This record gives sequence, C-alpha cells and structure tokens, in this order.
Amino acid sequence: MSHYNRVALIGLGLIASSMAHAIRANGLADEIVGHARSTETRATALEIGLVDRVFETAAEAVQGADLVVLCVPVGAMEAIAREIAPHLAPGTTVTDVGSVKQAVVEAVAPHLPAHAQFIPGHPLAGTEHSGPRSGFATLFVNRWWLITPLEGNDPAAVTRLKDFLTGLGANVDEMDVTRHDLVLAVVSHTPHLIAYTMVGVADHLRRVTHEEVIKYSASGFRDFTRIAASDPTMWRDVFLTNKEATLDILGRFTEELFMLQRAIRMGDGEKLFDYFTQTRAIRRGIIEAGQDTAAPDFGRSPTTTDPAKK
Amino acid sequence: MSHYNRVALIGLGLIASSMAHAIRANGLADEIVGHARSTETRATALEIGLVDRVFETAAEAVQGADLVVLCVPVGAMEAIAREIAPHLAPGTTVTDVGSVKQAVVEAVAPHLPAHAQFIPGHPLAGTEHSGPRSGFATLFVNRWWLITPLEGNDPAAVTRLKDFLTGLGANVDEMDVTRHDLVLAVVSHTPHLIAYTMVGVADHLRRVTHEEVIKYSASGFRDFTRIAASDPTMWRDVFLTNKEATLDILGRFTEELFMLQRAIRMGDGEKLFDYFTQTRAIRRGIIEAGQDTAAPDFGRSPTTTDPAKK
Repeated sequence: MSHYNRVALIGLGLIASSMAHAIRANGLADEIVGHARSTETRATALEIGLVDRVFETAAEAVQGADLVVLCVPVGAMEAIAREIAPHLAPGTTVTDVGSVKQAVVEAVAPHLPAHAQFIPGHPLAGTEHSGPRSGFATLFVNRWWLITPLEGNDPAAVTRLKDFLTGLGANVDEMDVTRHDLVLAVVSHTPHLIAYTMVGVADHLRRVTHEEVIKYSASGFRDFTRIAASDPTMWRDVFLTNKEATLDILGRFTEELFMLQRAIRMGDGEKLFDYFTQTRAIRRGIIEAGQDTAAPDFGRSPTTTDPAKK
Repeated sequence: MSHYNRVALIGLGLIASSMAHAIRANGLADEIVGHARSTETRATALEIGLVDRVFETAAEAVQGADLVVLCVPVGAMEAIAREIAPHLAPGTTVTDVGSVKQAVVEAVAPHLPAHAQFIPGHPLAGTEHSGPRSGFATLFVNRWWLITPLEGNDPAAVTRLKDFLTGLGANVDEMDVTRHDLVLAVVSHTPHLIAYTMVGVADHLRRVTHEEVIKYSASGFRDFTRIAASDPTMWRDVFLTNKEATLDILGRFTEELFMLQRAIRMGDGEKLFDYFTQTRAIRRGIIEAGQDTAAPDFGRSPTTTDPAKK
C-alpha cells in the first residue's frame, strides 16, 4: 500500500478531518500536519488529536511534506496555491478535494513549481455536517474518488496517489477535467441547487403555516433539507465556478419541469404515469451499482428516533 | 386502547400491509380481512398471513366490518365508495389513507350511507417500495397520521379512530381538508415532482454519459432517486387531484429557482451564500422536531454496502 512520509492537510473541515482519521486508521503516513485559517479550528484539531502538528500558515504546513492536500473551498484555492508554491519540496505531490475541477486547475496549476506534481481530485463523499469534529475514518469507504490527472503528470506519482486513496477505502477513477464538471453538474450540483430552492420556498410558506412544514417534513421534503444543509461557502463556490455546466443542466431541468407542470394542468395522467415509471428504473440501477441500499427508507429506524410529541 | 372487531383493508399495498402487521402486533382488532383487485396480490396476502380472509370484491370484504380502510390510489376511491356503500353496517367507520383529502372527500362522501362515519385520514409515512410484501409493523411509529374530520362526524367515532391510529404507533393530528392539501403540496407533492424531474433529466443525459450518472450518484442525486422511485399510479393521482395547490407551489418554486439561476449567471456570490445559510436553519428545526436524526448521511453505513467494483 502506498505511503507518504508527511501529509499536509490545508483546511481542516469534514473531508480533511475524515482523511486524517482514515490515514491513521490505515497507517498511510508517518506524520499528518495541518493548517486552518481559524484559531478555533486549529485548537480543536490539536485537542482531538486530528493532526500531529498544526500551523498558522499554509506555507509552513507544506514544508517537508511529500503529499499536500488542498481541502479549502474552491474560491480559496488560488491564494493558497500562490502562498505554498515557494515552499514545496521537489517531487511533492499536490492534490485537492474541490467539487469542480476546471476552475481549480486554472486557479492552482499556473502557480505551482515544475518540480511539484499537481494531480487534481474529488472524493464523492460527504455528509451535511462540516468542521474538524465532523470527520470519521470510514467516510470514503466504497465511495468514488475521481482524479483528473493533467498532461505532464509523472505516471509514478499518479499511481502512488491512487494507491493512497484506495488505502483510504475509496474506489478511484480517472476522468477528464471537463467531463468531470459536466457529470457532477448532473449528479450533484444541480440537485443541490434545486434542494436549496425547494427548502427556501417552504421557508417562506413556513411563516404562514406555523411550523407545519417542519412538523410534517417526513413525506419527501426531509431528504431535500439534508442536501440543503450543506456548507454554504463550499456550495457558493461550486455554483460560481461550475457556472456553464450548471446553467446548462438547469435549463434542461426547467424545460422538463414545465412539460410535467403542463401535464398536471391539462390532466394528462398517462404522461405523468409513463414518466414516473421510467424514473423507477434509474433507482434500480443505483441499487445494483452498490451506491445505495434497498432497505426501506434507507434503513432509517423510526423506533430509534426521539418521539416528536405535540 | 381502541379496538375494532373486524377491520377491512381495501387495497393491499404498502400502507395496508403495514397496518395489518401493526394491528396484529398491537392487538387492535379481532379479525383483519382484505380485498385486492389483483389475483396475485390476494394470493400473496393469504400466503404470508397478512389477513385472515381475503375477498374478490370490496363489497364482500366490508360486510360485518366495523372499520373499513380505503387503501387504494385516490383515482380509484369513487368506484370503491359506490361499490361498498350498500354493504356497510350501521355505525361502521370508514377512513382512507389517500395523500390528498379534498378530492377523496368529494369522491367518497356523497356515496356513503348516513349511518356510516366517513373520517378521512392520511399517514405521513412510506418507503419507496410498494405491494403486499413491502409492509412492516413499525412503519407508522413516530410518524404523523393526519385526519380531517367532516362536519357531522360523531365525536365518539373520531376519538375511537384516533385511539386506534395512536395504537399503530402514529402521532395523530386533526387538520382542515383544504389546509391539509396545501401543506402536503409543500412538504411532499412538489418535492416529489421535482425529484421525478431531476431524475428524468439525468436519465436523458445518462444515455450519453455511459452510466456515469448511476455510478456517481452518491453526491446528492441519490436522495432524489429514492423519492422518484415511489409508486407511479399513486403519484399520478396525487398530482391530478391536488392540482391547484401543486401548481401554486410549483409557480413559487420556479420563481425562486430563476432568482438563484440569475445569481449564478451574474456571479452574485453573496446572494447565494445568504440563501444557503438560511436553508440550514430549517434542517435544524426538523432535527429538533424529532422527524430525522442528526447522524451523518442519515446513519447510512458505507461499510455495510456491497462494494461497487469497477
């Protein structure tokens, strides 16, 4: 299994803290160091033993590291790249965990020295929580970790990184930068924007329906709220930096929604039935691909939830 | 605890089969009888011991029952009401589990005899599965069961039904028919339509991206597919019969979506950030109301899922 001497985690949120736990659990590095902008996050990281050492600046954190992982919001990548560039040792691999790739490549690649290997990456894993206490070692198990190697990457460095990510429990796939951004606009970015929108609409109505929306959320709305509870900074940056693909998919979505809305207005039951039958097949595909369980309601156990008494 | 001599379940899908299990587990009736239109469903119901007796017609099934529960799609309610009306014993309570209430009241109430009590109801519980084998006894535990009593209902009959539903594990609330349909359009009907739409959009794209959509679904899209895998007949009827409220909420949704879409196009990060921050608060409200768990990713355990190997 691949092993690094020193891994530097830049940014200490959900992904970085999960990486720290998984690296330690699987013995993938001799030392884990970290940097976070906030004093409180740095203190927490030391307190819970997330990293061996923590630094006030990213420049200090990357010194002597043979793997640097950029775990900051996409909008913060360029400043970090400029800051760390002079401090990267020859042969250091730099990767990132940003949800978009074209914008990260443009923000980071031009600033790094030729003697560093920048291999962009994106783990398709997360929860609705954030911060240094939200990580856990199994976050990446059986989840995809996409990497989008660049022209000129050293094949040995790519293989070493892939082995390391596999060691974290992930299934690693290579993908082209542009294709990554389109696929993610479909499976992640647009669904998130839609969930945010629906929750926002309900919030306006909540004021007139006296908390009924929250109270009766179990009927579909609840899944939207989980998605819409994700980190606001991260998602702002996703939409600003994967603008073209998101707007393209949103356009298709609106077109399709209007078609169904018209079917409702015209009372076209056959069209609705056929459409809803078709979408069931996709669900089956996901279960067969092992990306979800067929257990009812995702195996949520109602008996273990606190009762919501009136 | 409330008790009926004979409960007749008309339709034997997810809700009815869960009721059968819960009635038996909690000793809420001496006998459970059932009717399903399909020969196969009737055979299954007997085979797995869901009901004590099963009938080819709803008319036979309701004879001698003191509680009749209509568990058929909303579009089938009127025909069933006409069929059973002459066979209802004096004092029988009739309720239903339809997802809309105004349309059910209009379809059922005019046909029932004055000596029966029609008390409409709607359990806010379900999974993406359907059919007689999909039921389980704890489906209603800690879930809301809304009833919308009608003018002229006997208060004693209403209290008896409420006690019975509480015995199934549900939290029972009374609501006005019109308000029910509006609240459900927000928390359930519109979110379902949106999920169906997003899955449909992805399906069109799937054909060009070679299964990538299914493969990488874990990043938000997966929750949509669960919602969009629900029973097509039931949902067709929901949209056809709660047309006004659904179209109203859809209009608000589209308006809101265009505002966010414009913010993306204009690069207005502040607007996006503020919006996404606001929606987080709703999620907290739902967790505090006990309608979901704060466990990351709904407590999905990635390690118990079959690996999706390439």
